[in-house]
Amino acid sequence: MNDKLLVLGTIAYDSIETPNIKTGKILGGCATYIGLAASKFKTNCCLVSIVGEDFDKSHINLLESKKLDLSGVEIVANEKTFFWKGKYHENLNKRTTLETQLNVLTKFYPKIPKNFLDSSIVVLGNVDPNIQLAVLDQIEQPKLIVMDTMNFWIESYRDKLNELIKKVDLISINDEEALQLTNCQSTVEAAYKIQNMGPKFVIIKKGENGALLISKDNVFSLPSLPLKKFSDPTGAGDSFIGGVVGYLSQFKNISFDQIKGGVVIGSCIASFTVQEFGTKALEEITVSQLEQRIKDFKLLTEFEIMKTIFHE
Amino acid sequence: MNDKLLVLGTIAYDSIETPNIKTGKILGGCATYIGLAASKFKTNCCLVSIVGEDFDKSHINLLESKKLDLSGVEIVANEKTFFWKGKYHENLNKRTTLETQLNVLTKFYPKIPKNFLDSSIVVLGNVDPNIQLAVLDQIEQPKLIVMDTMNFWIESYRDKLNELIKKVDLISINDEEALQLTNCQSTVEAAYKIQNMGPKFVIIKKGENGALLISKDNVFSLPSLPLKKFSDPTGAGDSFIGGVVGYLSQFKNISFDQIKGGVVIGSCIASFTVQEFGTKALEEITVSQLEQRIKDFKLLTEFEIMKTIFHE
Repeated sequence: MNDKLLVLGTIAYDSIETPNIKTGKILGGCATYIGLAASKFKTNCCLVSIVGEDFDKSHINLLESKKLDLSGVEIVANEKTFFWKGKYHENLNKRTTLETQLNVLTKFYPKIPKNFLDSSIVVLGNVDPNIQLAVLDQIEQPKLIVMDTMNFWIESYRDKLNELIKKVDLISINDEEALQLTNCQSTVEAAYKIQNMGPKFVIIKKGENGALLISKDNVFSLPSLPLKKFSDPTGAGDSFIGGVVGYLSQFKNISFDQIKGGVVIGSCIASFTVQEFGTKALEEITVSQLEQRIKDFKLLTEFEIMKTIFHE
Repeated sequence: MNDKLLVLGTIAYDSIETPNIKTGKILGGCATYIGLAASKFKTNCCLVSIVGEDFDKSHINLLESKKLDLSGVEIVANEKTFFWKGKYHENLNKRTTLETQLNVLTKFYPKIPKNFLDSSIVVLGNVDPNIQLAVLDQIEQPKLIVMDTMNFWIESYRDKLNELIKKVDLISINDEEALQLTNCQSTVEAAYKIQNMGPKFVIIKKGENGALLISKDNVFSLPSLPLKKFSDPTGAGDSFIGGVVGYLSQFKNISFDQIKGGVVIGSCIASFTVQEFGTKALEEITVSQLEQRIKDFKLLTEFEIMKTIFHE
């Protein structure tokens, strides 16, 4: 059994519109995506979240079938599960929120199961920074604290967010949000500025342009795999980070090189996620598909240069 | 001596403003950047261009000292050299043209020196597509035809441009222009659409986000090197393509893998170009600096994944 992994985040119902398709209510939420992605590894992963009594038994069965520990998921009677409805535009990068029903989320005070208080890796998924801090305060000496955030918290909860960022080891943030957080014009500049705010490692997620990982002394950049089929970006960033921590949960000590590997694994998993709606691809991908995709990334990025080629 | 390389393009004077610095008139023009970059290799490179009588002897000496053949550069009496003045905005990605004096460029009808009519590689730098076609028509069976273009020609010379694109083997185009040319929303989609217009190889230059190379069956993506110093983007794309063709001029037959290598070399050279104003860095980089930068790109992109990591 590998390290204990604690994932804080939402378990939700989503309704997604793209230029081609409208889904009904489907399973969503950042904890769902992070957990499903991490479950590709032999990890001991506990989700900390809250749902309403409308939460379907089949979805509980699904999560449990992936060996996710749901003892930290509170089910509240007479309440409904958090619901998000969004619409993606033509290029699938921009989205508009059509509807948000916080529902049970307004009652969320995270309770961490006792046997996960000593988790080695804590992932603070995209929720209110106050809740992220509340979870962090309960965990005894994790070896790696990972956080994700989004534009809403950057705009409205800046002080709490700054307090949190100081305490985390690895932040995963998308390019637009990194620029927003730092007032920078370049993602590279933004990455170093965020690194100065506290985290030892910063990952900038750039969608079609891949991902950038920096630390004080090292840098790694991975392009994204050009995909012929692209259906739904929902959960891409969350399944990315789930892949990162699932991979990292196998190591005693965490080095830059291992996080590099995590970025590759996270990108592989996210590249499957976006090819279907919701969690479908994430539920179905096989080990051999994942192994093939690692090879695809190798092929995409490897090069050889002929020696002694230049001329003074 | 390697293959004959013919470079069509402007030799110009530029005046550049960034948020920090304003230059006086400095040497510029796409043929200048392409030629200087290609001259890092033992190539036999001829520039085809036109300048006025104001063109400084020291600049001729500079180009000749780099072993560039200027027999295709016409010097016109009583005329002034093409002049461009531009201003870069805060993020150095967006620029505004402040002034364009076409001057001698209005009289440009390219004359190709006889001993370069059998050039193996032809680079059609960013000029009027009519002139690009006129040069192409004069060359006997080149083994590789490379072209670059810009937004102005896409907007106003679309038919000619389409005619040209059909005939070239490799097109190098920046991301915004690729989207403009194809009406696509994604650069990957745009790359394949451009490939369908004729060229066997398509390179999308994405600035801070690196470069994408595709052919029908292969794909390669190189992130850009995060640079701590970045001064002036002028000539980045041209010195990129100069590096590509300089590298390729060493090979008898040109394969996808060799173009991959060319993309790395072009990115290395462009990464130096942008660190100083104008052609300064390009003139001064040494072989050992270039070799070190190839290593930096290796380090930036290489990864190892632990084996048998997944869990069914």
